[in-house]
Amino acid sequence: VEARLSPDLAPEETDFILYAPGGPLRDFSPYVRARAVLSLWAGVERILGEPTLTQPLVRMVEDGLRQQMREWVAGQVLRHHLGLDAHIRRRDPVWNPVVPPPAPERPVTVLGLGVLGGAAAATLAQLGFPVTGWSRSQKALPGLVRCLAGPEQLSAALRTAQILVLLLPLTPETENLLDARRLAELPRGAVILNPGRGALIDDAALIAALDSGQVGHATLDTFRQEPLPPDHPFWFHPRITVSPHVAAETRPATAAQAIAANIARSLRGEPLMHLVDRRRGY
Amino acid sequence: VEARLSPDLAPEETDFILYAPGGPLRDFSPYVRARAVLSLWAGVERILGEPTLTQPLVRMVEDGLRQQMREWVAGQVLRHHLGLDAHIRRRDPVWNPVVPPPAPERPVTVLGLGVLGGAAAATLAQLGFPVTGWSRSQKALPGLVRCLAGPEQLSAALRTAQILVLLLPLTPETENLLDARRLAELPRGAVILNPGRGALIDDAALIAALDSGQVGHATLDTFRQEPLPPDHPFWFHPRITVSPHVAAETRPATAAQAIAANIARSLRGEPLMHLVDRRRGY
Repeated sequence: VEARLSPDLAPEETDFILYAPGGPLRDFSPYVRARAVLSLWAGVERILGEPTLTQPLVRMVEDGLRQQMREWVAGQVLRHHLGLDAHIRRRDPVWNPVVPPPAPERPVTVLGLGVLGGAAAATLAQLGFPVTGWSRSQKALPGLVRCLAGPEQLSAALRTAQILVLLLPLTPETENLLDARRLAELPRGAVILNPGRGALIDDAALIAALDSGQVGHATLDTFRQEPLPPDHPFWFHPRITVSPHVAAETRPATAAQAIAANIARSLRGEPLMHLVDRRRGY
Repeated sequence: VEARLSPDLAPEETDFILYAPGGPLRDFSPYVRARAVLSLWAGVERILGEPTLTQPLVRMVEDGLRQQMREWVAGQVLRHHLGLDAHIRRRDPVWNPVVPPPAPERPVTVLGLGVLGGAAAATLAQLGFPVTGWSRSQKALPGLVRCLAGPEQLSAALRTAQILVLLLPLTPETENLLDARRLAELPRGAVILNPGRGALIDDAALIAALDSGQVGHATLDTFRQEPLPPDHPFWFHPRITVSPHVAAETRPATAAQAIAANIARSLRGEPLMHLVDRRRGY
């Protein structure tokens, strides 16, 4: 792709817009020639609300994001599975050799089987965990992942989840999906990992479930408000680990390739990949 | 295999001996009929010293041990790679989003490419790490592991090791292999994981390297003396994590299958698998 890149191109000369929430561009209406707005973020819930953004919208899908998400999910699942915190935080010289069960005896559920959730689920299955995946519509994943779908199978996906990973997009359907009723469906003491979106969980219901022991620990990488405000109770709860939105970020090297390849498709007259379905919300 | 199992079989009726160090059996000489002693542990350095144990000796190789070692090594490598300790130990509400480089930019070296080291190296490669493996004699591993061998290639294996995993057997050749000279060959700030044997590392040289910053952290699962004595400096060093020999233990369910399969081979007249070469020491 030969391209002229600038933050100040005249709207009437702009074919494609690369965009992230919080950028300087507020009014997309003069960009009548633009064939698409390409988001630099995987999640588009904040962009969908832009009233003048009527151009086709493309989600960020790139190998760097996927690779990092595989690593973060595998690392956090193994951390909780192996009980590493006890050794990392130990202060007294007490030899207490508790060997955890092997991964084939630790069922894990991944909610969301898109590019990121699918990669995380496949990685966990490769490590030996029995993995259940759940998504809005039926998916088929290679390997050993048991795939469930739709609201009527969500309870079955939660019931066995000793460790639960949230990688759903945030939509009106998924907001507060993990509420008090759903948290009660988890096995007692389950661990929740949320590298997806903060608003997938009802904050107050999560704290109540942690206080009662229904949820054993929550490691949260995403929050309703970021940075997480310094007085938010999540910072101070002994069963919450705050991970400051570091699970995965768009990597310039791999993202530039993904964007160039997608634009090249469009210039060749092929449809853009990863177009957002505005009705569906992602 | 039909077998009569007992801790008190008469020596002259005993065909196979299942044994672990510290068991009640001290004198193997009356067991003249025994075709083999099958160790319940993967490491046999303590058994090799039994003067009356002259029967063929078999190391424990079983899927449960291998699976658990894959998990422990992957979990500890990802923990250090992702910098999870900063979030696990944080006490103040400070949002500091430092995203680590992706695994393809984090070279890892595994010393020892036997059943456990080979499985660990392959698992790390699947997760995306550039893996160098090193062993006494040249090995070929499937996938992306770069295999080095012999004393003359040890420096090359250490030089790139941002994270170093020790899974060598303990022999006169490997004792104190990681001494001050070898530790100095690592990149500055390297992390050492030792789920192999404590005596692979010179304890005093390790502490000096940690104090100087040459080694960034050591997570140790094996020690010269176990339980690690309560006054040992490893317990109190801020750059050491003591993991109380929990990386992998022989699992009865899978170990029983491995033992039965090996004995069945012997009863069919086939050679036993995983026989220890006493000259080599493992």
